[in-house]
Amino acid sequence: MTSTHFAPRGSRDDIEEGHTFQPRFDSDGLIVCITCEVHTGDILMVAYMNAESLRLTLETGIAHYWSRSRQSLWRKGDTSGQTQRVVEMRVDCDQDALQIRVEAGGDGKACHTGRRSCFYRRVEFAGAVASLVIDPD
Amino acid sequence: MTSTHFAPRGSRDDIEEGHTFQPRFDSDGLIVCITCEVHTGDILMVAYMNAESLRLTLETGIAHYWSRSRQSLWRKGDTSGQTQRVVEMRVDCDQDALQIRVEAGGDGKACHTGRRSCFYRRVEFAGAVASLVIDPD
Repeated sequence: MTSTHFAPRGSRDDIEEGHTFQPRFDSDGLIVCITCEVHTGDILMVAYMNAESLRLTLETGIAHYWSRSRQSLWRKGDTSGQTQRVVEMRVDCDQDALQIRVEAGGDGKACHTGRRSCFYRRVEFAGAVASLVIDPD
Repeated sequence: MTSTHFAPRGSRDDIEEGHTFQPRFDSDGLIVCITCEVHTGDILMVAYMNAESLRLTLETGIAHYWSRSRQSLWRKGDTSGQTQRVVEMRVDCDQDALQIRVEAGGDGKACHTGRRSCFYRRVEFAGAVASLVIDPD
């Protein structure tokens, strides 16, 4: 099987207007990925991919990430059953952020706290104090 | 005027289930922020905030970021007129990612390439090759 390679970074015009995928990995070898639920568009989670997890995501159509806390490749759903089937991937203008739209498997809960989305709290701000309000969906 | 301070990081339970805002800034002092259009929910851009830009965003209700390329505080719209009024801010489970929903000012274009969203390209994958398709909205 031919392994997927990513193109080196080209000119600014190439990066912004071109048709070549030239993802920029940061100094830790990671690129940020925003994962959205395909039907609602809601953001489920934010995670990181290294070149290997991005390659595996593209090749298998199943979301793979790099766990920064565990420092290991992480196929979402391997233990929880909450596999994410990638319906669409997008990249931003300077190719240093990805967005994927996924069909969430299992019980559809993306967050390890047992919630559908990791963004379950609103930040409220009053009188120089920011506090959090849990907003169940 | 009392300046906004952010709480130090507490226990895991505190961070995940508590009501205290304890944003985690990375080793560069930054936290990732996903900016969505309030009416459509579409992701407009991904950017970073340092403590000062987060504080200014909360205090003024106008999105402020930290420009990594220019290494400077950046009030979105100062030169373009595309100011972003923050309608809601959310934080994720481990408090290392923010989501803001904004009302986009000016012509509503968030991307410096003149597009509404920075995510104007889809990644297509076939035969071990990933290529980009521009998808005007």
